[in-house]
Amino acid sequence: MKNDLPAFGCVALIGKYQSAEVTESLHTLAQWLHASGREVLIEGDSAEALPGADFESADFEVIGRRAKLAVVVGGDGSLISAARKLAPYDIPLVGVNQGRLGFLTDVARSGMLPAMEVLMQGQFRPERRALLQASVWRSGERLFSALALNDVVVSKGDLGRMIEFEVRVDDEFVYSQRSDGLIIATPTGSTAYSLSANGPIVHPSFGGMLVVPLCPHALSSRPILLDDTSVLSVRLFSRHDARAHFDGQENFNLQGDDCLLIERSPYCVTLMHPPGYSYFSMLREKLRWSEAPKDV
Amino acid sequence: MKNDLPAFGCVALIGKYQSAEVTESLHTLAQWLHASGREVLIEGDSAEALPGADFESADFEVIGRRAKLAVVVGGDGSLISAARKLAPYDIPLVGVNQGRLGFLTDVARSGMLPAMEVLMQGQFRPERRALLQASVWRSGERLFSALALNDVVVSKGDLGRMIEFEVRVDDEFVYSQRSDGLIIATPTGSTAYSLSANGPIVHPSFGGMLVVPLCPHALSSRPILLDDTSVLSVRLFSRHDARAHFDGQENFNLQGDDCLLIERSPYCVTLMHPPGYSYFSMLREKLRWSEAPKDV
Amino acid sequence: MKNDLPAFGCVALIGKYQSAEVTESLHTLAQWLHASGREVLIEGDSAEALPGADFESADFEVIGRRAKLAVVVGGDGSLISAARKLAPYDIPLVGVNQGRLGFLTDVARSGMLPAMEVLMQGQFRPERRALLQASVWRSGERLFSALALNDVVVSKGDLGRMIEFEVRVDDEFVYSQRSDGLIIATPTGSTAYSLSANGPIVHPSFGGMLVVPLCPHALSSRPILLDDTSVLSVRLFSRHDARAHFDGQENFNLQGDDCLLIERSPYCVTLMHPPGYSYFSMLREKLRWSEAPKDV
Amino acid sequence: MKNDLPAFGCVALIGKYQSAEVTESLHTLAQWLHASGREVLIEGDSAEALPGADFESADFEVIGRRAKLAVVVGGDGSLISAARKLAPYDIPLVGVNQGRLGFLTDVARSGMLPAMEVLMQGQFRPERRALLQASVWRSGERLFSALALNDVVVSKGDLGRMIEFEVRVDDEFVYSQRSDGLIIATPTGSTAYSLSANGPIVHPSFGGMLVVPLCPHALSSRPILLDDTSVLSVRLFSRHDARAHFDGQENFNLQGDDCLLIERSPYCVTLMHPPGYSYFSMLREKLRWSEAPKDV
Repeated sequence: MKNDLPAFGCVALIGKYQSAEVTESLHTLAQWLHASGREVLIEGDSAEALPGADFESADFEVIGRRAKLAVVVGGDGSLISAARKLAPYDIPLVGVNQGRLGFLTDVARSGMLPAMEVLMQGQFRPERRALLQASVWRSGERLFSALALNDVVVSKGDLGRMIEFEVRVDDEFVYSQRSDGLIIATPTGSTAYSLSANGPIVHPSFGGMLVVPLCPHALSSRPILLDDTSVLSVRLFSRHDARAHFDGQENFNLQGDDCLLIERSPYCVTLMHPPGYSYFSMLREKLRWSEAPKDV
Repeated sequence: MKNDLPAFGCVALIGKYQSAEVTESLHTLAQWLHASGREVLIEGDSAEALPGADFESADFEVIGRRAKLAVVVGGDGSLISAARKLAPYDIPLVGVNQGRLGFLTDVARSGMLPAMEVLMQGQFRPERRALLQASVWRSGERLFSALALNDVVVSKGDLGRMIEFEVRVDDEFVYSQRSDGLIIATPTGSTAYSLSANGPIVHPSFGGMLVVPLCPHALSSRPILLDDTSVLSVRLFSRHDARAHFDGQENFNLQGDDCLLIERSPYCVTLMHPPGYSYFSMLREKLRWSEAPKDV
Repeated sequence: MKNDLPAFGCVALIGKYQSAEVTESLHTLAQWLHASGREVLIEGDSAEALPGADFESADFEVIGRRAKLAVVVGGDGSLISAARKLAPYDIPLVGVNQGRLGFLTDVARSGMLPAMEVLMQGQFRPERRALLQASVWRSGERLFSALALNDVVVSKGDLGRMIEFEVRVDDEFVYSQRSDGLIIATPTGSTAYSLSANGPIVHPSFGGMLVVPLCPHALSSRPILLDDTSVLSVRLFSRHDARAHFDGQENFNLQGDDCLLIERSPYCVTLMHPPGYSYFSMLREKLRWSEAPKDV
Repeated sequence: MKNDLPAFGCVALIGKYQSAEVTESLHTLAQWLHASGREVLIEGDSAEALPGADFESADFEVIGRRAKLAVVVGGDGSLISAARKLAPYDIPLVGVNQGRLGFLTDVARSGMLPAMEVLMQGQFRPERRALLQASVWRSGERLFSALALNDVVVSKGDLGRMIEFEVRVDDEFVYSQRSDGLIIATPTGSTAYSLSANGPIVHPSFGGMLVVPLCPHALSSRPILLDDTSVLSVRLFSRHDARAHFDGQENFNLQGDDCLLIERSPYCVTLMHPPGYSYFSMLREKLRWSEAPKDV
């Protein structure tokens, strides 16, 4: 009977193998999932490294096709990395944080197994997060493309000099800018690098592309939030060099006249949040957002 | 034959009658519209004050029911005032600016008649702008309500002391804040007062409620952009006094424990833009947005 | 022999008498000081209200002429109030905080008597803080003048409309500004209201006048720090109304064309800091200055 | 008779020789100065390259010892470069700008000779500007030192990752910070890179060291202005890499645990300003400082 099948019948486990702590958590999770009657896929070649068990190793493509859920053990960086690779497959993700909770990793390692129980009972809440897709064009040729869950950043290159570029939206001129660079962030990325550059917080239930200058030369520059049905282009002026960063995990060196196109990806990332999860509470706790001075 | 009927067969004219310049523009427009075979309604009691013509005077309710277009002669303030009153009737608005163009008034008085020609030929582009609706509650009773096209502002009251209040979204606690006040702005209002308070620009094709603190006591305060399906509440702490402002055109004195509810209005305002209108160009020209220093 | 005379032979005690807690602290301090052989002056008429003792009541003028030290029991507001009144007499001040420590009140009530011991042994470190003196001029006549330890603030008046004014330094034109107002702060005041308005922190060992706009209309406005040998003038444009605030403790309603002159006062305030006092530590603790987010 | 000697009897001319325009200006100036009875020194080996004249070539050391005035032809960058090299010799500098006026170069090429006349008549006003001196220390050894007229910037290195470092003042802990870097600016530098990073403007008659974070991770970070009798140290955390930049003209790669010491230099730079020079007017014109939006 279909009802007897467990929820999330095939679960992928993803984590860094360099860390003994992570390996231990992966092992514990794998055993629990196996005992609960689920199929377990371990990302990477090292499934056999997990002691005392015989789990199947799988690459991201296999995980994408077979898994119904991916559990990422690590920090926000690990979750972002997995999310970018699994985006085309639309598998929900849950993050188990080894230390303190992250912006994206809601489950603490200490309460990992009870959380799995609750998750499997269908009590986690899915939340869809937008991704950006970006591509680099030179002389009409696409040289590079990547997804970003947080942000695409154009920043000054090796010379360390201010760069100059032109921004267009759906081919309409927005501005030319001299600055240290430009951040194009998703709502998810609005609490990451963009926030350090004086960008606003954008609630993730909202879409939109947030465009935030880095140390702009013009005093009248301000961040702008654009509709995410738009295509944004950043064209570097000739004789400037810059670097494009994608979630801080990949980068590409830009030359003068290169053009970076950024738009919303057709893919989304689905994060699974535990009961009681609150975005505002996370902001207050992680960012000390609006925390009052102590002289009150 | 229906095709012979002119577009916008009944047009309302709205403007301040204190100004001789405005009266003259209204008169010129009224005659042109009349000559083009359209019915003309003049807002206010003073239709007969327009020399050499016999136009019908109408209040906003009559205009709302009969007019197919409202032409507002004046600045952004006049257009906002008309938009708030006509919001329930969904009549497109066009603004004729007596002086320099405004954020919302796209047609210069000098080119007013050619612009009408173009407008009547269907070459203006409609753009829908979101409104906020706000209400003040005291001891379970609604004391006041108003619409806002730009913003609802809670600011310190007559005592001039910092105020303290609690913000909730859909009844979830967001933060309590000590500050000079709080701006809740539409995308349209993101280029008004909110921008002075270090808020971001939000493209009007986007909905959303922008929440920007005024001189917050906590150094870690930041603006946030919320989904406009949310209901935002601002509850004043007891023993504080504050004032709520609606588009800077109406205000209401708040007492301790009063609660202000703000959400997106079911109404929209439709602005008619001339061919060639560009939001980004308007930002650059009106705000000197991103304008480079002259030492380049 | 002169050496036998106690340090600070005459000490003034200042505090709010409405508070039972403050009264108790004042009484304890008065008895300790009396027992240590010092003359004690109690500010205000209520010296006799202190139970079981017979201390001399004195107004600020008498305190100014006779006391060698003033101990203020209360918060930063009480200390600022006393400092402004005693400024002409150059008496060192020490603040005893009833609750948590303040920016200016370094001694906690709980350790008040041991602190007095240390202070009397000459182990407190004096620090001189600059004051501003401000005057309001109308039609060539001086209508009002006041001192400020934190700041002089010009803000919009009862109408709640943006104000417009012209700023000059030593009669040289600086700018005209439309805004909610202007803060002119001392280094001491740089951590008060000015900081909420995005002003920088200025170390108090530095003089200078910090000029910070409140919600300026021009996007290119920035705070400026001026030499404190300058005289700054703020002249309100006609048909505007504004209010001038002095340390948030006194205020004056300004009319169109009124002129406010602000310069460094010839007086200073001397604060006595306990051993181990650190300005940077106070910034970190009171303001959470530079406190890292918790996701590190 | 001593009075017959011309003012500034020996004048050095400094400029880039790559530019035909600059060479022409140098030649014109050299001839004018020679005709006025002054000794002329041309910086660099290319004095003989100046056509139709026989001027003495000199390096910065010779200039420093002999010249009574240095005229720099070029932009602010050229003037800063010359100022750093001539700082030990205390020779006044005047900048002739080839294009639009700069922050530091007050004389336009078009009016160069009349300006020289006025300058030689003693009608220019000298203004002294503070310099920073900085040194890099590794394992107790000084590896590098440099002067800066604008700023010393510590920024993330080749990896492009946020850096972490500790700041101390006179060996007292100020904060540890995660950020893209830190700017330590003079008042002169307050209108350069620091301003892009949201630092305040500091009037150059004021000394002080302005410390401005670059995209700090902590939301509660703020710029601080320190007394320039202090020594500031920035110690990089281990396993971080960074780069120190001096006026954007020299740089040094920092390793983990390197320490950068920054203090006010005993040298000053003396700029000669033409009659009518106004610092505030320069701010308004160069930076569009406080320039009003056009919708007024």
